[in-house]
Amino acid sequence: MVVFQPCGVRGKIEDGATILEASQQLGADIESICGGKGNCGKCRVRIERGYFAKYGIRSKIASVAMIGEANEKFLSKAQLKQNYRMACQTLIHGDAVVFVPEESRQGRQVVRKEATLRDIKLKPAVKKYFIELKKPTLHNNLGDLERIQAGLAEKYKLRNLTIDYPILQNLQNIARDGDWKVTVSVWNKKEIIDIEPGNAPKAYGLAVDIGTTTVAGYLCDLTTGEVVATNSMMNPQVAYGEDVMSRISYAVKGKGGLKQMNRAIIKGVNQIAGRAAARAGIKRTDIIDFAVVGNTCMHHIFLNIDPEYLGRTPFSPSVHHSLNIKARDLGIKIAPSAYVHVLPIEAGFVGADNVGVLIAEEPYNQDEILLIIDIGTNGELIMGNRKKLLSSSCATGPAFEGAEIKHGMRAAPGAIEKLKIDPKTGEVQFKVIGNEHWNTEVNNISARGICGSGIFDAAAQMFLAGIIDKGGRFNSRLKSPRLQKDGGTPEYVIARKEETTVGHEIVICQKDIRAIQLAKGAMYAGARIMMKRLGIDKIDKVILAGAFGSYIDKESAAVIGLFPDCAPENVYAVGNAAGDGARIALLNTDKRKEADVMARRVEYVELTIEPEFNSTFTRALSFPHADDEFPHLKRILNNRRKK
Amino acid sequence: MVVFQPCGVRGKIEDGATILEASQQLGADIESICGGKGNCGKCRVRIERGYFAKYGIRSKIASVAMIGEANEKFLSKAQLKQNYRMACQTLIHGDAVVFVPEESRQGRQVVRKEATLRDIKLKPAVKKYFIELKKPTLHNNLGDLERIQAGLAEKYKLRNLTIDYPILQNLQNIARDGDWKVTVSVWNKKEIIDIEPGNAPKAYGLAVDIGTTTVAGYLCDLTTGEVVATNSMMNPQVAYGEDVMSRISYAVKGKGGLKQMNRAIIKGVNQIAGRAAARAGIKRTDIIDFAVVGNTCMHHIFLNIDPEYLGRTPFSPSVHHSLNIKARDLGIKIAPSAYVHVLPIEAGFVGADNVGVLIAEEPYNQDEILLIIDIGTNGELIMGNRKKLLSSSCATGPAFEGAEIKHGMRAAPGAIEKLKIDPKTGEVQFKVIGNEHWNTEVNNISARGICGSGIFDAAAQMFLAGIIDKGGRFNSRLKSPRLQKDGGTPEYVIARKEETTVGHEIVICQKDIRAIQLAKGAMYAGARIMMKRLGIDKIDKVILAGAFGSYIDKESAAVIGLFPDCAPENVYAVGNAAGDGARIALLNTDKRKEADVMARRVEYVELTIEPEFNSTFTRALSFPHADDEFPHLKRILNNRRKK
Repeated sequence: MVVFQPCGVRGKIEDGATILEASQQLGADIESICGGKGNCGKCRVRIERGYFAKYGIRSKIASVAMIGEANEKFLSKAQLKQNYRMACQTLIHGDAVVFVPEESRQGRQVVRKEATLRDIKLKPAVKKYFIELKKPTLHNNLGDLERIQAGLAEKYKLRNLTIDYPILQNLQNIARDGDWKVTVSVWNKKEIIDIEPGNAPKAYGLAVDIGTTTVAGYLCDLTTGEVVATNSMMNPQVAYGEDVMSRISYAVKGKGGLKQMNRAIIKGVNQIAGRAAARAGIKRTDIIDFAVVGNTCMHHIFLNIDPEYLGRTPFSPSVHHSLNIKARDLGIKIAPSAYVHVLPIEAGFVGADNVGVLIAEEPYNQDEILLIIDIGTNGELIMGNRKKLLSSSCATGPAFEGAEIKHGMRAAPGAIEKLKIDPKTGEVQFKVIGNEHWNTEVNNISARGICGSGIFDAAAQMFLAGIIDKGGRFNSRLKSPRLQKDGGTPEYVIARKEETTVGHEIVICQKDIRAIQLAKGAMYAGARIMMKRLGIDKIDKVILAGAFGSYIDKESAAVIGLFPDCAPENVYAVGNAAGDGARIALLNTDKRKEADVMARRVEYVELTIEPEFNSTFTRALSFPHADDEFPHLKRILNNRRKK
Repeated sequence: MVVFQPCGVRGKIEDGATILEASQQLGADIESICGGKGNCGKCRVRIERGYFAKYGIRSKIASVAMIGEANEKFLSKAQLKQNYRMACQTLIHGDAVVFVPEESRQGRQVVRKEATLRDIKLKPAVKKYFIELKKPTLHNNLGDLERIQAGLAEKYKLRNLTIDYPILQNLQNIARDGDWKVTVSVWNKKEIIDIEPGNAPKAYGLAVDIGTTTVAGYLCDLTTGEVVATNSMMNPQVAYGEDVMSRISYAVKGKGGLKQMNRAIIKGVNQIAGRAAARAGIKRTDIIDFAVVGNTCMHHIFLNIDPEYLGRTPFSPSVHHSLNIKARDLGIKIAPSAYVHVLPIEAGFVGADNVGVLIAEEPYNQDEILLIIDIGTNGELIMGNRKKLLSSSCATGPAFEGAEIKHGMRAAPGAIEKLKIDPKTGEVQFKVIGNEHWNTEVNNISARGICGSGIFDAAAQMFLAGIIDKGGRFNSRLKSPRLQKDGGTPEYVIARKEETTVGHEIVICQKDIRAIQLAKGAMYAGARIMMKRLGIDKIDKVILAGAFGSYIDKESAAVIGLFPDCAPENVYAVGNAAGDGARIALLNTDKRKEADVMARRVEYVELTIEPEFNSTFTRALSFPHADDEFPHLKRILNNRRKK
């Protein structure tokens, strides 16, 4: 028997499972960013009861055994003595009680994927038609279906309609229940996918954005375009690995990993559909259309297609154009005959989410050169205008999502999301998710860690305050009570121990700054290479897409050098444009066609094989850049130098 | 606990179930022709152990109780005393041991539905295409599916193909397993429904004919048209009622009757597919196409559509044109993406089986006037030529299948299938199914009853021998040791007690002759009314379709007056034309289209609402007819009169 505290879940576990696997099986809540590879150091737990063996040596009295060296890498000797272990690197061979400290709990992430107000032209795939039928007589012996088809042809000029089999089975009773007055749902003027008795004009569709970390659903009224309910959740696949690459490894490992992740996301999407429907006061089966976007890996796993080849050169997807698949074939529990429209993907690393951004922002209809940055767990770039469009994908690493950062965490309650450093005193003000005010006032929630937007601010503010230099190195001459060392490497205290609930300070260390540099440097280098490919030396507009893009401080992003110079008034966030793209495709079939055409027109730039990528990337590691000019940041950067 | 003997099956049964219901639940083998309505008298069983109560009065000691009066109607006092009961009219309230006498066992019917040799032009819906693909590189980043689509477009000019979702899931591995050489199955030049590694040119399809009594499957090589295996079985729905009307009542009764019958036939079809595949040395999932025919009731139940309205005026079907439904949606376990093509039906009582006959015989391409008689459990008629075609359906009752006949049985081993009566001596010679010789020689199997073709012969031979008169009455002046009386009504002994295995003689009684008269009279009257509607006074050809039509004696059929006069050389049997029609549709998509067009062109005559039906029918009850002339039977009929 294994018991997890404080949540109290318990159960029998197969001999030799890791504590992390046990927690996943029993539903305990343990953070796992690297997916159990012993790389992230986030799954620290304390063994309350159990006998220890070291390095997997099984003995009759040992009920818990360490494997690998990760335990000693991430845990101090004192911690090991207090029975702290890495959950993913510790095997269970018998009974144990495991305590999961607050900082190792996943916590409920704040999902920031509201629908943006957009004016979308209505041309939905599913339309409803009300008809009154002639009753059958001995002299009019048409089949019930043919009677309905004749009615639709006569009143609406709809011809050659097929019918989906599940609808056929109950059609005769529905026709009679409605006294031969029925409402017929027709998909793409081709197929009858629902029949209801009487006049039932309302029609609903669900647009879903499957992000690596969060999944959002927008329930729309197909007759008005209005979003009637929104619902979102953490992607339940997070338990199997934080980023795309760890999900791919989990699937490739075999042992049903793909199926497990596929079921998890299908179940999650069904929950979103159910909750959104409940909120709108309809039944889940009233949802008669569905559009979905996601990056290529999410796209493949949603379709139960092995993502293995996405992660291996030449990174070829299994399918790239759009698909219409019966909801029931996917296990999606909406109207049984509804189709799921899966938006196209562009290339091995540029997914349907990016296509969503494309049809939402329409760079292909503009003269100005746009740079669209979609910052999620993966970073994707689109650059160009009506003449030419390029896309690329950057392995930013999960730093922006708080992973690989010493006190990083996801955007959950307790995460520092904004911060300011007084350049004179070095004092820090911060704001925590879940609180209304900055930490200078009274709040409900104490800090637990720092999330992506906080990390952006930290890097920019530390650079502007001279705590770190242009190259990202800590200023060794700086005197400040907040500058401290941990094993010889410097770190800056953002929140003091007494301001947190985790029992220690929250700091930004040298390694954190390096992680940010690598991530932002990759984005910047990508943009530079794309500019060169387009033969341009300036961009007119920067669009920050993705939920994350809406929460980062534009100035912080500019100061750390996330993108080449651009007038601040032309840098703006558009919210979850991928999700908006799904909604647009849900509501307008012309945009579905546009998506297929444009996804093919965008030219994908595989950055890793560009010969100049390495040198471009290296120069882009500096804040904001080693050589490039930033006319629009002149005033801010000059202020820094003056100090 | 209820135990059935001699088969020995046993199990717990809900209190108050009938013995027949118990036998169906436990899988014991009891004949049920009327579907448990107490009308047929075929489900006689003997209670070996159990305490009796009369007329459903439950007492603490009673474990078996009679209901209704059918027990006293079909059983003599002596039989009741020996504990014989009607299984469908007797409730079980406790423990019982029930003996099922040989004559009440269903027995394994001889299914006589061989495929007929026909020259069918090949144009199958599913074709296979072999392609060699270019391997993906970083500069050729098409998706795997798009790579296959491009290959098919280049080599075979196939464009705009969609793919069925289950195939998409494993496509990438198949392409790599085959080293980028694959064979693609394409349905109707529209949809990819299978992908196999390497070159796999063979393709198989299954044509299925679902008769009320028997189901036959023809496994065909789609590349040659050859029938590679045949398999058939009794329709497993027979347990729920012998004829169409009793199946409809069973469905209408509610309590999941439709679902039960639907599952039974789907399971049966899967068994046929499995056995045929095994016989041909292929896997069941190698079957990539499927075509099916059946009368309207079989059609509806196969599709899990309630047949209720087929049995009620105005007899409107739920759908009449052809359908293409994914095998998996129907539960048919062949290739998961294969389609099931369901042939169209004509009207409430003229089904897809009749359309099968239509496209097999093509009366619409002929100048001569054809009468096609499809004798199954239901009788269907087609009459006409290229100018005009009529169809009708006759409630022949199940007499031709041996039901409602005192010693009638289905065409199973032990059934008398042919007989001759010497007009001088009145002596009978007969042939039993399962034996090679007539009863004048040594054989293996003794008679158990008489089946449809035997009944035809009996009526014709008894009429020609003067045992019955033109009106069907027994000749009271005749002296013959074979003529005996049972309760005052005459009967003629066909097989003597010592020639049977059922412990009594096999006879034809007055009631049996009446049943044949009603059945054949309905067919004849139908033909007459159709002739009048066409404005003709003679028919050029009579085609006997249906397995049954192949086994009846053409002369017997003519003598009893199954159809109006026709030259004997122009009367011929074509075997299971409905099944052949399914096979033709399987192999040729042009014929599928023809079926849809022709099914609509045939004009359905609802005989029951024709004002002259009753008088026409009454006159048609006589042998061969009250007034009509039969120039081609002159010699035979004159011989009779001479006697």
